Amino acid sequence: MRIGFQGEHGAFSEQAVFKHFGTGVETVPTRTIREVFNLTEVGAIDRGVVPVENSIEGSVNETYDALLTSRAKVVGEEVLRVVHCLIALPGAKLSGIRSIYSHPQALAQCRNFVTSLGADPLVTYDTAGSVKMIKEKHLTNAAAIAGERAAQIYGLKILAKGIEDYQRNFTRFFVISMEDVPKAKKSKTSIVFSLPHTPGSLYRALEAFATDDVNLTKIESRPTKEKPWEYYFFVDFEGHTSDRRPANVLAKLASRTAFLKVLGSYPRSKDELSR
Amino acid sequence: MRIGFQGEHGAFSEQAVFKHFGTGVETVPTRTIREVFNLTEVGAIDRGVVPVENSIEGSVNETYDALLTSRAKVVGEEVLRVVHCLIALPGAKLSGIRSIYSHPQALAQCRNFVTSLGADPLVTYDTAGSVKMIKEKHLTNAAAIAGERAAQIYGLKILAKGIEDYQRNFTRFFVISMEDVPKAKKSKTSIVFSLPHTPGSLYRALEAFATDDVNLTKIESRPTKEKPWEYYFFVDFEGHTSDRRPANVLAKLASRTAFLKVLGSYPRSKDELSR
Repeated sequence: MRIGFQGEHGAFSEQAVFKHFGTGVETVPTRTIREVFNLTEVGAIDRGVVPVENSIEGSVNETYDALLTSRAKVVGEEVLRVVHCLIALPGAKLSGIRSIYSHPQALAQCRNFVTSLGADPLVTYDTAGSVKMIKEKHLTNAAAIAGERAAQIYGLKILAKGIEDYQRNFTRFFVISMEDVPKAKKSKTSIVFSLPHTPGSLYRALEAFATDDVNLTKIESRPTKEKPWEYYFFVDFEGHTSDRRPANVLAKLASRTAFLKVLGSYPRSKDELSR
Repeated sequence: MRIGFQGEHGAFSEQAVFKHFGTGVETVPTRTIREVFNLTEVGAIDRGVVPVENSIEGSVNETYDALLTSRAKVVGEEVLRVVHCLIALPGAKLSGIRSIYSHPQALAQCRNFVTSLGADPLVTYDTAGSVKMIKEKHLTNAAAIAGERAAQIYGLKILAKGIEDYQRNFTRFFVISMEDVPKAKKSKTSIVFSLPHTPGSLYRALEAFATDDVNLTKIESRPTKEKPWEYYFFVDFEGHTSDRRPANVLAKLASRTAFLKVLGSYPRSKDELSR
């Protein structure tokens, strides 16, 4: 099995791959999330694993925008606890760190720590990629924020661990594929729709879920880009498209939406917390 | 009048200030959006102007997170058409540009242009700040993506104009203040709420709007941060809190939500498009 993920080896997305599929799979790094979708569509990888939302920072827009147009289906979800580390060259000391490199979301999640250290936050595309860069450019007085595994892979030193502002920091990932997966006992389904230009249209769409007692677990809006202040709504709910009540809801939605696309039904993650 | 905005002089937020208040006001740049809120709260500025959503990239999370906790009220909105320029040192040529600096949202909005040029996108905190940096560090073979005014202010050259992927690119701003504003003919109101842990609770909240025929113009969810996969909902709707029907809705919402905060009622922007 070849599984694609965005980032360099050691990225949180690669950790999610190993948690979901075990360590026996081959991981394929890409530069962007869109590339994970592209490689999945052309069959260059068997599955892709992409971040969809973080419990602190919120939704990952690039993933939502790709889901809208991609032919790949959502066939699974995974939840990973995010523990951030400050990582530097072997000789470095915490007191000597002047610059901290990382992805904007990671910098945002460790805001208090970065501020208390009085270091300059410098944004990059990637957590593990920042660790790699510090090694390759031999940057002294600099550190990166990334996961523990990135330090091990590149042979760098962990100066501090668990530096995130909020301990309850989780990222949820989607597994994408061109093939369907067998139906599980507990399923979830993800869809996206847009609404007709009539007052109360969102209410009428959600009414379809309420009358059939189908539980919504997430709703997210994204701009359509074609027209200002018009939105796509991404909705996750409990159940499988082949179940009676979810199928009822989809039939009703088809007539109450301007556009409707089923992104996929998939087994619900065991680690999905506190519903 | 002293008006705060995030960024360097020449930023799109500063353009929004001048569009809303005229050019006779004093503008106060800050490093972060949170700082605009802080300065407003302590009275160091009379008003703040903060970006809330872009018609391509979506909501500005930092603004939503600040609105949740700030004592400042939303007292106005402004809409600005975003036209991106590629800006470099006076002697530069388009063919010689190897690196392009800008805010991640601006880079994302000009993805096709940056890709076709084959230049490296490099992320910074700020559009106008990238122009300033190119001047100060005298970076050759480099350019910044920012608004036209930034090129004028720092005396740099516009190599290309209107380089955004989508022409219908607008940013909506909130005006924040510690003082209320007089009620306008056409008002909008912004609120934020969280929901009790019962199925259908979002539907029941939206029902309050539908039964009183109050038109929702925007709904946005943000994670609560305290508990994974629980959300705050930010909702904009037509009308003023002192109007009969919106007041009815708020009374119903008070008993159907776990938390409810009115962010403010404000005059609806004339440039708010295509509702």
